Amino acid sequence: MLTLYIGNKNYSSWSMRPWVLMKQAGIAFEERMVRFEALEGDSGFKRTVLKVNPAGRVPVLVDDGFAIWDTMAIAEYLAERFPERQLWPADVRARARARSVCAEMHSGFTALRTHCPMNIEASLPQAGALAWRDQPGLRADVQRLVGMWTDLLQEHRGPMLFGDFSIADAFFAPVCMRLRTYQLPVPGPVTDYVRRVCALPGVKAWIDEALAEQDFLDFEEPYRTGRG
Amino acid sequence: MLTLYIGNKNYSSWSMRPWVLMKQAGIAFEERMVRFEALEGDSGFKRTVLKVNPAGRVPVLVDDGFAIWDTMAIAEYLAERFPERQLWPADVRARARARSVCAEMHSGFTALRTHCPMNIEASLPQAGALAWRDQPGLRADVQRLVGMWTDLLQEHRGPMLFGDFSIADAFFAPVCMRLRTYQLPVPGPVTDYVRRVCALPGVKAWIDEALAEQDFLDFEEPYRTGRG
Repeated sequence: MLTLYIGNKNYSSWSMRPWVLMKQAGIAFEERMVRFEALEGDSGFKRTVLKVNPAGRVPVLVDDGFAIWDTMAIAEYLAERFPERQLWPADVRARARARSVCAEMHSGFTALRTHCPMNIEASLPQAGALAWRDQPGLRADVQRLVGMWTDLLQEHRGPMLFGDFSIADAFFAPVCMRLRTYQLPVPGPVTDYVRRVCALPGVKAWIDEALAEQDFLDFEEPYRTGRG
Repeated sequence: MLTLYIGNKNYSSWSMRPWVLMKQAGIAFEERMVRFEALEGDSGFKRTVLKVNPAGRVPVLVDDGFAIWDTMAIAEYLAERFPERQLWPADVRARARARSVCAEMHSGFTALRTHCPMNIEASLPQAGALAWRDQPGLRADVQRLVGMWTDLLQEHRGPMLFGDFSIADAFFAPVCMRLRTYQLPVPGPVTDYVRRVCALPGVKAWIDEALAEQDFLDFEEPYRTGRG
């Protein structure tokens, strides 16, 4: 039995990746949401997560009592355990490229993550416009994303980055959320890809549950004092 | 034919990982060092790297004209291409755990990376003591490392983190360099592991070449004005 520990659906971009991956690939799992009340050492969040993951972070996948943490490791574990779902592209070079862009996301895009934190429920075009004007790192991150996605969509002819849905689309789904919330300027083919990602049943299910969450966490919201 | 693009051996912790992995596993490759003259957009470094990697970073592995970038993706590519080298542990759970700790390193340990940048040639116990005193994040990172390594060395009975040498040891080799350079306080079994890592032929070769490099880059050295 697989159990996935996640944070708040509205905010937790890392949790979104394996959740969307499993939903979209039809892999059954139980979900355990650990509320992001605070992320510090002695919070209820940390205490709960540390019981299953010594790194103290979500997401964590628990398979019959064995914990796998970190999105990259969870993705590889699922790809090995469910080979028939073809979570990575079948071609060796496409697979290598998919891992490159996922790993690039995993350790990079710091400016995008800092200035445009995931916030599915919100529409923040003003905050987005200010960040776009003032943050060259954000513009560079989005420029790199646009180049990457455009090349991949052309090479593999869509509709997803590597043709069919793969781990790569799950990894970039939270980025699609950010582009939408902050209305960052991107070319038409990128907007179309974002729309297709949002329409995937696994992504749509996450968005719907994020909208239903109704949990405002002020430390996740540097730009407003409440929902609405 | 495999070619690995790397940065300066004294400073480039990310480059060290796949280089050490291939050397230690006996995988033949050519090396191309791209000097860290500066990391900005129009530097010679960026121009050279961008020709092979659109993400603009080292390391990059090029296999017959096909580029694989990012250490996680390079490691997975090599593990698939050279299955007989057993770069990951053979047991499914040990392999999952190895991927978890590598991915944790890949996206985390920010305080350790920021306050104790890799600098193999240097001995900086004073800088280390100040950072240790003033940076709770650094102490937390080292505490997590000590816990992780101690548990793994006990569970797999050493000498390496998962018994025999694996990708995990290559991923943590730069951390061993930092612990040594800054003389951060760690328990005996951890010091012993650091010593064993430094004695691996693949790691020793990197260290020797880093020492021979004789290239002082001031923007990599927040705490001194020259070698010596």
